[in-house]
Formats: sequence, C-alpha cells, structure tokens
Amino acid sequence: MTSTTYRLSWVTSANNHRDFPLQNLPFGIFSPEGLPPRGGVAIGDFIFDLQTAVENSLFTGEALSAAQAASGKSLNAFFALPVSARLALRERLLELLDADYAQLKNLQAQGEALLRPASVCKMHLPAKVGDYTDFYTGIHHAVNVGKLFRPDNPLLPNYKYVPIGYHGRSSTIYPSGFAVRRPLGQTLKPGQEVPALTPSARLDYELELGIWVAGSNPQGEAISIANAAEHIAGFCLLNDWSARDLQAWEYQPLGPFLAKNFATTVSPWVVTAEALAPYRSAQPARPEGDPQPLPYLYDAADQANGAFDIELEVLLHTAAQKAQGLPPHRLGLSNTLNMYWTVAQLITHHTVNGCSLRSGDLLGTGTLSGPTADSLGSLLELSNGGKQAIRLDSGEERCFLADGDEIIMLARCKKEGHPSIGFGECRGVILAAS
Amino acid sequence: MTSTTYRLSWVTSANNHRDFPLQNLPFGIFSPEGLPPRGGVAIGDFIFDLQTAVENSLFTGEALSAAQAASGKSLNAFFALPVSARLALRERLLELLDADYAQLKNLQAQGEALLRPASVCKMHLPAKVGDYTDFYTGIHHAVNVGKLFRPDNPLLPNYKYVPIGYHGRSSTIYPSGFAVRRPLGQTLKPGQEVPALTPSARLDYELELGIWVAGSNPQGEAISIANAAEHIAGFCLLNDWSARDLQAWEYQPLGPFLAKNFATTVSPWVVTAEALAPYRSAQPARPEGDPQPLPYLYDAADQANGAFDIELEVLLHTAAQKAQGLPPHRLGLSNTLNMYWTVAQLITHHTVNGCSLRSGDLLGTGTLSGPTADSLGSLLELSNGGKQAIRLDSGEERCFLADGDEIIMLARCKKEGHPSIGFGECRGVILAAS
Repeated sequence: MTSTTYRLSWVTSANNHRDFPLQNLPFGIFSPEGLPPRGGVAIGDFIFDLQTAVENSLFTGEALSAAQAASGKSLNAFFALPVSARLALRERLLELLDADYAQLKNLQAQGEALLRPASVCKMHLPAKVGDYTDFYTGIHHAVNVGKLFRPDNPLLPNYKYVPIGYHGRSSTIYPSGFAVRRPLGQTLKPGQEVPALTPSARLDYELELGIWVAGSNPQGEAISIANAAEHIAGFCLLNDWSARDLQAWEYQPLGPFLAKNFATTVSPWVVTAEALAPYRSAQPARPEGDPQPLPYLYDAADQANGAFDIELEVLLHTAAQKAQGLPPHRLGLSNTLNMYWTVAQLITHHTVNGCSLRSGDLLGTGTLSGPTADSLGSLLELSNGGKQAIRLDSGEERCFLADGDEIIMLARCKKEGHPSIGFGECRGVILAAS
Repeated sequence: MTSTTYRLSWVTSANNHRDFPLQNLPFGIFSPEGLPPRGGVAIGDFIFDLQTAVENSLFTGEALSAAQAASGKSLNAFFALPVSARLALRERLLELLDADYAQLKNLQAQGEALLRPASVCKMHLPAKVGDYTDFYTGIHHAVNVGKLFRPDNPLLPNYKYVPIGYHGRSSTIYPSGFAVRRPLGQTLKPGQEVPALTPSARLDYELELGIWVAGSNPQGEAISIANAAEHIAGFCLLNDWSARDLQAWEYQPLGPFLAKNFATTVSPWVVTAEALAPYRSAQPARPEGDPQPLPYLYDAADQANGAFDIELEVLLHTAAQKAQGLPPHRLGLSNTLNMYWTVAQLITHHTVNGCSLRSGDLLGTGTLSGPTADSLGSLLELSNGGKQAIRLDSGEERCFLADGDEIIMLARCKKEGHPSIGFGECRGVILAAS
C-alpha cells in the first residue's frame, strides 16, 4: 500500500510516471517493431496494444465496439463514435490496468504482445486530419504581436468578440520527432523594393494546444455551445512552426500561407477530456470593461468549468548544448488558462455559419503566451521582434531558430489528490534549407 | 461524312455537344440510378462507365491500370498515377469512342451498362480533397476590391511578386447542385460598436477556375516550374461563395474564415490538361513597368504556352425569373486569361517552402474578373460594394444574393478547327438561413 489516495496500476512504471499514470490513458497510433500501425493506449513506459486486447476478448458491448474502432491504423472511426462508447472503453481500460485487476495473470501471460515497450515503438499521427484550423485565442500573444505593428492599439476591434481563426494545412502535420526543413520563401529585406527567394532567416515556433474533433455536423447546422463538449475527442501539444520573414511579406491581404504551411508538429497522444476532468477550471474572468461573449458563445456551465488548467513548457536544445552535454534551455512556461476563449466556444463559433466539422479535424488554440517575460510562446515575442537576443548557457545567442536547434514542448496537469499527468513530447529539430 | 476536320464519336449526342464532344473526355465520379458511385467519362449526353468497361476487358497495359484507378469511388488513385498512364487511358478512350471504332458492335452490345444516360446519374465530387487552397490571381478583381478599401493604392506591394493564396476548407466543397444555406455570422452594422449574430445580408459568389492536383511532393522538396505541369490532373469551375459582411468584420488579421468556409461549389467533371491543349496560350504580357517573375517562377515555355484561353460565364436565375419563365440573367463573361499567374506558377510557389501537395488537392484561382463592367466575377464588384443594384428583367434588383437565387457557372473553349468544349455546370441555389 502507498499513501496515495488515487488508484495505481499493475504496470508499475505508470505509477509516478511524468506523463502516463493510470488516470491518463491517452490514445494513439503506433507501430511495434516490424509490425504495421495500430491503436494503443499509453501506460507508463508501455503501450497497451488494443489490437492484441481485442483479439484476446478483453472487451464486450460498447467497449468492444470502441476498442475495435480504436485499434485500426487511425483513430478517425473511434472519434466518430458516441461519447458513451468512448467512455465505456476508458472505464474498461481503467479496470484492466488497475493494480487490483482480478485476472491479472491472464493479461501478463500475453507479455509484450499486449504491453509493448514504448521505447521500441514508432508513433504516428493519431488520425487522418481532414481540416486543420488554427485560432488566435492567446490574448497576451495577440497583444504582444499587435504591439510590434501598432504600439498604441495592439488589439484589433474584433478580437474580444470573434474567436479569430484561419485554415491551416493538413498535409504537413507531423508527429513529434519529424525533422523540419527550413523553408525557402520570398522575403523583402529592409530598404529593398524587390523581394528575393531565400531561406527563412526568422524561423520560429509557436506553443499551442491542439484539439482533436469528435463527431461531425451536417452543412448548415451549427453545434450549440451546450453540445460543443461532445465534439472534443482530446488534446495534444502543437508547434505551429512559423517563418516570420515570409509572413511579413506575404500575409496581406489574405493571411498566413507559406509562412506556416511547411510543417506543424503535434504530440502523438490524444489526452482525453475525461482524463483532464480534474484539471478543468472556470474560464478566467474577462478584464474590467471587456464585452461579454455574444449569446451564441455564452453558456453558464462553460464559463464555470469549460477552461483547462494545463501547464505548457517549451524548451530549446541546440546542437552546441547537446555537444557540451548541457540540458535544454527553458524558453517559456505558460498555461492554457491564457486562452481568451474556451474550446467549446471555438467549436461553436467554427460551425455557427453552417461549416461542417468532421471526426479527426484538428484545431489549434494559437500561441498561448502568458502575461510575463518567462511565459512567452514564441521567439518573436521573446526577442521583441528579433531585436533582443536570448543568451544560452552554451554561450550561444538566439533571436530565431538556427539549423540543428530542437524545440521540445511538454504539458503537465497537477492537482492535490491526483497524480500529475502529461501529454508526452512534441519535438522537432530544424534541418538546413535544401 | 461531315465537313468538320476533327474526329466524331459514334455517341452521336457528343458531336456538336455544348460541353462534351469526343475531344473533351473529362473524368468524374457518378452513381447510375440505384448503384454505388464509380468513375466515368462524359461523352455527349452519356457517361461512359469505366467499371463496366474494365469488366469487359476494354483496356490493357498502362491504360488498364489507369482505368482501374479511375473506376473506383474517387479519382485520387488515378490522379496519383504517372502522366503516361493518364495519357494512355485518354488515348484508348479516344479510340473506343471514335466514330470509326472497328469493334463498335461489341460496345453497343453492353447498352446502358457501358453508356449511362447522364440525366439519370447523380454526380459526386471527383476526388476526396485533402487540402483546398484558394489563390488571388485575378488582378482585375484584386484591383476592384482594393479600390473599395484603398482608392489611391488598390494593389498591395506584394501582389506582382507573390502569387497570394490562403487555405480554404475542404470539408465543405460540394458538387454542382448542392443547395447552400445562407450562413449566420457576426456582423457589425455601420455606426455600431457591438456586433450581432445575423444571417449574412451580403452573400456573394466568386467566379473561379479550380485545379485538381496530380501526384505529390515530399515535405521539403519543391516542385520546379519546369515540372509543375505534370501535377495538373485537370480543371473545374469553382464558386467560392462569400459572405461579405462576415468577411469585413472577421478577416483582420488572419484572413477570411467563416465568411467563406460554409460552402464551395465545383463542377463535377475534371477537364484534363490534354483536352485543353488546343486552347493553351501565351501568358498575357505584364503591363509596362510590372516586374518580371522571380527566377523560381519563370520558365520560358510556361510564359509562351502556360496560360489557358477559357471563356467563363456566370448566370443568375432567381425564383421570380423561374416563375415568370424568364431565362437566367448573365452577370458576367470573363476568361482565364485574366489570371496574373499561370497554374504552373501557382503549383511551384505553393511548394517552394517545402509544403507537400497531394493527389486530389484542389486549388482555386481566385475570382477571375475581366477589365470591363460586363466581365466581373462577383456581385461585390458588380454592385460597387453594394451601392449600385443590378436590374433584372423580372423587375427585381440585386446588390447581393437573395434566398432562392441560383448561380450557374459555365466554361467554354473555342478555336478554329476544333470543336467547342465545355466544363458542364457549376450550379447552386441559396436556401434561407436556418
């Protein structure tokens, strides 16, 4: 017996695991060594193989349907199921992986076919992304970026009414570990009138929360704010790689395009809303004088409990730091409470015009900077638009990313009486331009 | 014998057909009455059923592989084939459908299983769209819209260097005939400071050419301008429905979102680059003083022969016109020669940063207005921003679209010594807001 008040797992590495205790149970798609992709659940240092589990008749009823849908090569079919089926599977997994599970010997007899060592598995994108939408809910980020262009009036008049968003590129969403090639693009050097095609010299990351969409809505039928939570399949970390010099030259009048569509990196595990339930929070109060959300975006329950208290961390590990044996440098420590809109508000706004969402769509929150210098979510903000370099212990300086730099994002939820849970890593290294 | 110099088909309705003579042979996905979707080829008033044709061993070699890939429920696999396979299938179809085909009796014996009357078939989207990108290549449109906001300086400084584009929504692309529900959205009435959720009062169409992408490129590897033509699977008409009042309030700073993502309509037939070969043209000369394209966007052969001379027509048919037996009103007659960039330039620019295109991606050209009042491609331009209504023979007036209005787009290619070919229809009627 331990002194914890929460349940432990017979997978001992799960207990006190940084990311994946029994209470998390995120879904993902993985390949065991030499085998094709299939669905699994992270538990400690292992992946519970849903294909093996289904073959061994560990599920019945609605949990079986859900396990079958989640055991294929993408989670789209799983995300399309009713909430009750997704919950039934989670309940059964909590039972199977509990330290007190009665028929433990049966499970242990399956060995590595059931419990794959994560270290030898390759992770894939959890779902085939139909559409990817990136929002702009980080109000501190919006103010910081706005100040670079409009010092006296950083926030545009629509910001506090409209959850601003735009469509991103789904073909270039990659799981953690994908190496990102520095993009070429048109840039206009200061003082020049004619642009040139050059490798981006102002390559940046953006720290975001990603939301996987569950279910769908037909064209012309909005998802009400009261029903929006049903359409959250789960969450990931998201790095919206951005080439600031390309963006500055191309983005008027239709928004970012090549500055962002070369790559987006996500953490591969889908952390469910159920796992995050203990870390839900009231939506932070709007500053005095801010308008209330329009009625279609307002729901008392959503305001009271629709936000999430998730700590977000971003680290930089340069090639020189690695060579010198130095640890990564923490660039920022932020929190999803920096979102000006709840996830339910994003879903409802996205569909109020009749736009169809589909299972496996991905939403990004936009960069979630906090209000302080140590909680910023991009180098653009950290370097004040490239004017103040960051100093690293390796003796290096950075305004933007250099080739060989690796960005690592982590998330963490903590609450008294609950184990800490995390998201796994969202990691990407920059390759030299081709 | 006729006096034409071009080949005729034994499918007699093809000869002198408005859209689909033997020389066109566009690909599409259709359902014969009561049967599942499959690939086919438009010929006159009929659809040549590729599934039946494959089953009857009408193909061999590369043409067989291509026919198999094109006979399923989407054309993505067909678009992924090498150009040579797509060409082999076209050559064989030209042979099979030629008036002089030697074994005609064998084909005719198949009856309606091989040649489906188009009137009883339902058309679908030709491919599952991975990503949809909309460009802004219509320079007259860009000037006209720019003038509404910046009378003295309508074109932004990047326009003549960067093929401006942004990502659209792939979940809401519909084939011709889909009824579009008027979107709700946040709008800010003149003089107000607080927006309200209302049905769009400034609903508009945009006349565009759509381009279906063939093949793919890996992340980090651009498609050179010399190779770009291989990545054109074919063309369609595209109506980029737009809610101008939503757009005006939401689009800063990240571009159009809910103002456009509720619906996009395309004509369902994929007219191939091979069918359009006779109608290729030199890219129109840039006005005196305009910069030349940057080297990565410049290819002498593309400048000499990379444009297309396709007439584009847009018609309005209101409920009252229909009730009075009046024909549709022509809103505009334009041409794809109004594109400031070639299709090859769009493909190359899209990938110069390493962004991956995939077979079945869809590109839009942006609104292709001409330089004259009778060649405009949107009501925003026709009504001068909603200030001058258009008068119809029914006695009605329009600044923007009313419920029950139907927009019909047509395309036509004409050249001495060739039959006229068309694209079929791109049609959509507006339903009242929900």
